[in-house]
Amino acid sequence: MNSRFSGILAAVFSPMDENGKVNTGVVPAIVDSLVADGVSGIYVCGSTGEGPLLAREERMEVAEAYTKACKDKMPVIVQVGHDSIAEAKVLAEHAAGLGADAVAAVPPTYFKCPSVENLVDCMAEISEAAGDAPFYYYHVPALTDGVFSMVDFLRLGEGKIRNLEGIKYSALTVFECQECLNYAEGKYNILFGCDEMLLSGLVVGVPGAVGSTFNFAAPLYNKIMDAYKAGDLERARELQLLSVKMVNTLFKYRGQPAFKAMMGILGVDCGPNRLPLKSLDSDEVAALKKDLEDIGFFDWGRTR
Amino acid sequence: MNSRFSGILAAVFSPMDENGKVNTGVVPAIVDSLVADGVSGIYVCGSTGEGPLLAREERMEVAEAYTKACKDKMPVIVQVGHDSIAEAKVLAEHAAGLGADAVAAVPPTYFKCPSVENLVDCMAEISEAAGDAPFYYYHVPALTDGVFSMVDFLRLGEGKIRNLEGIKYSALTVFECQECLNYAEGKYNILFGCDEMLLSGLVVGVPGAVGSTFNFAAPLYNKIMDAYKAGDLERARELQLLSVKMVNTLFKYRGQPAFKAMMGILGVDCGPNRLPLKSLDSDEVAALKKDLEDIGFFDWGRTR
Amino acid sequence: MNSRFSGILAAVFSPMDENGKVNTGVVPAIVDSLVADGVSGIYVCGSTGEGPLLAREERMEVAEAYTKACKDKMPVIVQVGHDSIAEAKVLAEHAAGLGADAVAAVPPTYFKCPSVENLVDCMAEISEAAGDAPFYYYHVPALTDGVFSMVDFLRLGEGKIRNLEGIKYSALTVFECQECLNYAEGKYNILFGCDEMLLSGLVVGVPGAVGSTFNFAAPLYNKIMDAYKAGDLERARELQLLSVKMVNTLFKYRGQPAFKAMMGILGVDCGPNRLPLKSLDSDEVAALKKDLEDIGFFDWGRTR
Amino acid sequence: MNSRFSGILAAVFSPMDENGKVNTGVVPAIVDSLVADGVSGIYVCGSTGEGPLLAREERMEVAEAYTKACKDKMPVIVQVGHDSIAEAKVLAEHAAGLGADAVAAVPPTYFKCPSVENLVDCMAEISEAAGDAPFYYYHVPALTDGVFSMVDFLRLGEGKIRNLEGIKYSALTVFECQECLNYAEGKYNILFGCDEMLLSGLVVGVPGAVGSTFNFAAPLYNKIMDAYKAGDLERARELQLLSVKMVNTLFKYRGQPAFKAMMGILGVDCGPNRLPLKSLDSDEVAALKKDLEDIGFFDWGRTR
Repeated sequence: MNSRFSGILAAVFSPMDENGKVNTGVVPAIVDSLVADGVSGIYVCGSTGEGPLLAREERMEVAEAYTKACKDKMPVIVQVGHDSIAEAKVLAEHAAGLGADAVAAVPPTYFKCPSVENLVDCMAEISEAAGDAPFYYYHVPALTDGVFSMVDFLRLGEGKIRNLEGIKYSALTVFECQECLNYAEGKYNILFGCDEMLLSGLVVGVPGAVGSTFNFAAPLYNKIMDAYKAGDLERARELQLLSVKMVNTLFKYRGQPAFKAMMGILGVDCGPNRLPLKSLDSDEVAALKKDLEDIGFFDWGRTR
Repeated sequence: MNSRFSGILAAVFSPMDENGKVNTGVVPAIVDSLVADGVSGIYVCGSTGEGPLLAREERMEVAEAYTKACKDKMPVIVQVGHDSIAEAKVLAEHAAGLGADAVAAVPPTYFKCPSVENLVDCMAEISEAAGDAPFYYYHVPALTDGVFSMVDFLRLGEGKIRNLEGIKYSALTVFECQECLNYAEGKYNILFGCDEMLLSGLVVGVPGAVGSTFNFAAPLYNKIMDAYKAGDLERARELQLLSVKMVNTLFKYRGQPAFKAMMGILGVDCGPNRLPLKSLDSDEVAALKKDLEDIGFFDWGRTR
Repeated sequence: MNSRFSGILAAVFSPMDENGKVNTGVVPAIVDSLVADGVSGIYVCGSTGEGPLLAREERMEVAEAYTKACKDKMPVIVQVGHDSIAEAKVLAEHAAGLGADAVAAVPPTYFKCPSVENLVDCMAEISEAAGDAPFYYYHVPALTDGVFSMVDFLRLGEGKIRNLEGIKYSALTVFECQECLNYAEGKYNILFGCDEMLLSGLVVGVPGAVGSTFNFAAPLYNKIMDAYKAGDLERARELQLLSVKMVNTLFKYRGQPAFKAMMGILGVDCGPNRLPLKSLDSDEVAALKKDLEDIGFFDWGRTR
Repeated sequence: MNSRFSGILAAVFSPMDENGKVNTGVVPAIVDSLVADGVSGIYVCGSTGEGPLLAREERMEVAEAYTKACKDKMPVIVQVGHDSIAEAKVLAEHAAGLGADAVAAVPPTYFKCPSVENLVDCMAEISEAAGDAPFYYYHVPALTDGVFSMVDFLRLGEGKIRNLEGIKYSALTVFECQECLNYAEGKYNILFGCDEMLLSGLVVGVPGAVGSTFNFAAPLYNKIMDAYKAGDLERARELQLLSVKMVNTLFKYRGQPAFKAMMGILGVDCGPNRLPLKSLDSDEVAALKKDLEDIGFFDWGRTR
C-alpha cells in the first residue's frame, strides 16, 4: 500500500490579523506546535485553510510561509483548486516552485464537472502546471457535489494526470475508499478526511488522514492510531468516541469557524474568518470553551 | 450495549411467481437456507422486501408467512412504514398480532417530516398500534431524505415512542451511529445497514447488522464477524474487500433487482420485481452470473 | 388545443372531524360553495386532499362523496397515485367505477422511477385499471423529485398509457409547459398547477388550472382569467399580485395546513391534518386570519 | 417601476482564440452586431461569459474591451462574483474604474452563504468596492444553490448594500420576481433571466431581460416584446414558442458551449470554452446547425 504520507496530517489554517489580513507571522509557532503534537505533515489552503476565500497573492503567501516553516521538519501539501483552471495552474506552478512536497486540487464548483472524464481533464491541466510535484485529488463531495466514482477517477486519471499520487478522501463512503486503497495493487496514497470516523478508515487500511481537528487534537488521534496498531480496539473505540463528542461540540458552533477559534483558545490567535464563513463572537468563544470543558476536552484532547 | 438482536440479520425478499403475484410457498425454504447460513434473524417488508411496493394484504401475507416459518428458529422484525400513518398502523397492529419479535418503520416520503419532532410524532402513532412489540426506526436517508440527527431522535423519542428499542441504521455516518450506540449508556439496539462497510461499523461497536446481501452471502459476513472477534483485522479487512467487490458487481445491475435475481441464481426463485424497480432480464442475469464468477464469488461468498 | 377541462379547478380537501376521522358530511356544502364561486371542476385526493396520507378505504370514501356531490354539477378528477402500483390500481378501478370524469396519478416516491420510460410503464399499469376514464399524469417535482421531460413523457406515453389525456402540470418550467401544450398539435389537456403564477401560464396558453387556493379564492382567479381574456393585462397583473400576497401569507403558516385552516375561517370546518402535515393551532389560525385581514384578503379574495 | 435598464440585454461571451487565450479583438464587431440587432445593453463576465472560469487579469481584459467598445452605444454591467470576496472586490473596483454602468455579483459557491443575512453581508463588501456604480445581485440558484427569498434580500440589503439597484433574476419563480418588482413601490430594477420564459416575465411586469440567447436571437425577442406591447398576445406566444424550440435545440448540445458555438456559425468566431465546460467539436457544430435549420431558426431567429 502506498504510504508516501501516513499518520496524522493537519489541514492548517490561514492565520489573519484582527483586520482580516493574512498574518503569516504566527506560522512558525503553529508549525512547531504541530510537530510537538506528533503531526506528520500539513495540508495548506484547503477548506480548513479557507483557500478558496483568499485572493491569489494571499494563497501564495500562506503557501510560502508554511513551506518555509516546515522545511526539514515535515512534508507540505498545497491545495490549489479554483473555479478557474487558469488560476489553479498559476497556484500549482507557484507551489511546485516553492518546493512543496505535493499539490492537491478540488474541482471547480461554479460550473461543475459533468462527468468523471471531464474531472480528469480538469485535474490533468492543473497537474501539468505542478511540474514534478506529486498530485492529489481532493475529494470532498459535501462541498463540491462531485459524486463521481473515485475508482473510475483513478483508472481514467492513471495515464492522463501527471504524477497522480493519490486522493485526499473526505467522504463517508468507506467501502469506496477501501477499493481505492486496493486499486492497482495499492499504488495510490489514499488519505482519509473524516476525523470523527478515523477508526473506520484505519480498519479498511488507510495509512494516514488529513483533518481539521488535528490542528488542536493531534495527540488524541495519535493515541487512536497507537491503540489501533497495538490491537487494542476497545481503547481505540473509546478514544474515537471522545473525538465524536469533540466534533459534535465544534459543529454546534458552525464547524470551521469553531475550529479556527480553537486556535485562539489554545493560545495561537489565527484571527477571524472570511465571508461567507462567519467568525465566532466572544460570547460564542466563551460558550464553546465552556462546552469543551464540560466534556473534559482539555483533559483528554491535548495530552501528548 | 443493548444487543437484543445481534449478528447477521437478512432483509428478506418478498417472493413472487412469474406473474408478479406474491408467492409465499418458497418462504420456508428461504428461511431454512438462511438458518443454515448462520443468519440470526430477519427483517421483512423493508426496502429489499419491496414492502412499500406491495398492497396492504400482500404485506400482511408476506409478514405472516415469514413469522410462521421462523417460529422457534430466529426472530422476525416486520417493517410497516407507509406514506399513510393510518395504513402503517394497520400493518403494525397486524404484525404485533402475528407475534413478530419487533416492528420497524420508515418515515413517510410523499410529504416529508419537516422536523425531528414531527418524525417522532409519526413514529409514536405507529408504535402505539404495535402493542407490546419492540419498535425500531428504519433510518435510510438515501431513500427517504430523512437527515435528522438520530441522537436527537433517541432523546426526543425516549418518552414518546412506545417500546422504542433501537434503530436500523442504514446510513454512512458511522460517527453518529457510534454516538447512538453510546447514548443513554447503550440503552438502544443499533443495527447497522451498510453491508459493504460492516467492518467499519463493528469497530465502533455495532452488535449486529441488517442487510440485503446477507440473503445470499451470510457465510462471508459471518467470517468477517468471526475474524473481527478473534482480533484478526487483516483477515477481516480482506474479507470485507470481497464484500465490496460483490456489492459493486451487484450495483452494476441496478442493486435491488440484482439482489433478487441472485436468489434465482442460487436456486430459490423469488420472481420478478415490482415497478418502479425493474427485474433483470435473462441476458442480464447471465451477465451478472458471469461477473460474479469472474471475481470468484461462488468460491468465497457462500462457503460456510 | 385540448380543453377537455378548462377554467379554475379546485384541488379539494379531505374533510375530517375533530378526531381526525374522514368526515364526508360536509362535502355537499363544499361542492355547492365551489359551484357558486365559479369553479369549473375538482381534483380529489391530490396533495391538497392529503390523498397519500389516507388509508385505502378513506381515499375511496372521499372519492365517492365528491363524485356523488358533483354529479350534474361539475367534473371530477380522482388522484390515485401510490408507492404501490398495486394499490394505485385498486384505487383507479374504484374511481372509474364511481364514474369519475378522469383519473390522475403521481409517481411512486419511495423507490423513484429511474427513467422516463419507467415512469411511463408505471402510469401504463395504473391507467389500465382505470377502464375508459381519461388519464392524467400528476407532475409535481417539488414533492416527487420526478424531473423528467414532460415532452418525452407525452411522446413515450402516447401508445402505452391507455386514454392518456393530459398532465396536471405543477412545476415552474413554463417553457416546457408551453411545449406540452403544443405537442402533437395541441392534442393533450395541460392543466397548470402554480396558482401564484397563473397569469404566466395563461400567457403561454394553458386552458385551465388546478390549485389549492381555488378552494377559497376562486373568485379572484376567475377575475384574473376574465381580465386576461378581455386583454386587460394591467388589471390581470394587479390581481395576480394579490394572489402572490395571499399565497405568501399562507406559506408563512406551512402551506397546506394553512389552506385547510382557511376552510374553517370561511365557515366550512375541514378539520385537522394528518401527520406528517401539522394542523395550525388556534393561535396560528388567529394570526393567519389577522395577516389576511391586513392585506385585505377578505375584501378582494372572495368577492364574486 | 424602476427601468434603469430595459429591453433586451445580451450576456456576452468572452471570446478566445484557437488556443483558448482571451481574444478581445473581435469585441468591437460583436458589439456592433448586437447594436444592429436592437440589443439595449450587455452583461459581461457572467455565466455565459465564463467569468468564473477566467483568471483575474483575463476578466479585467474582457471587461475593459467591452466597456470601451460600448462607449456611447449602450450600457455595460460587469459581473464580478467570486468564491473569494477579496478577489471580487478587486474586480468590482476595476469595473467601476472603467466606467461600467453597473456592477453585479453572484454569491460564493465553494462555501455557500448559510443565510440571507450572510449573503447581504457578502454583497455589501463587494458593493463597497464598486464606488458609485449601481449594484445588482445575480440570482441564479440553478448554479449557486442560493435559494433565499429575494424579497428578504431586498429588504435586508436596502440599508447595507451600497447603491443596490436591482437583481438579475435568473430563476423560474415568477411569483417572487413579481413581488420584487413591486417591492418598495417598484424601487428596484429587476431583470429577468429566463429567455425561454420571457413572455411569462413580461406579463408580471419585468422591464427587461438579460440572457444568453440574445447574443444571436435578439431580433426574435425584440419581436416578442413588440407584440406584447402591442397587445398581440397570440403572436407573442407563437414567437415565444419559437424561442422554446431554439433553446431546446441548443440544450441538446450542452447549453453554454452550444451558445458559444452559435457565434461561429453566425460568423463571429468566439473560440473554445474553458473547462469544465466542453466546446462542441466540429461534428457537433454541424449537427447543431442542421437541427437549427430543421426548425427554421435561420428564417425566424435573426430577421430584424
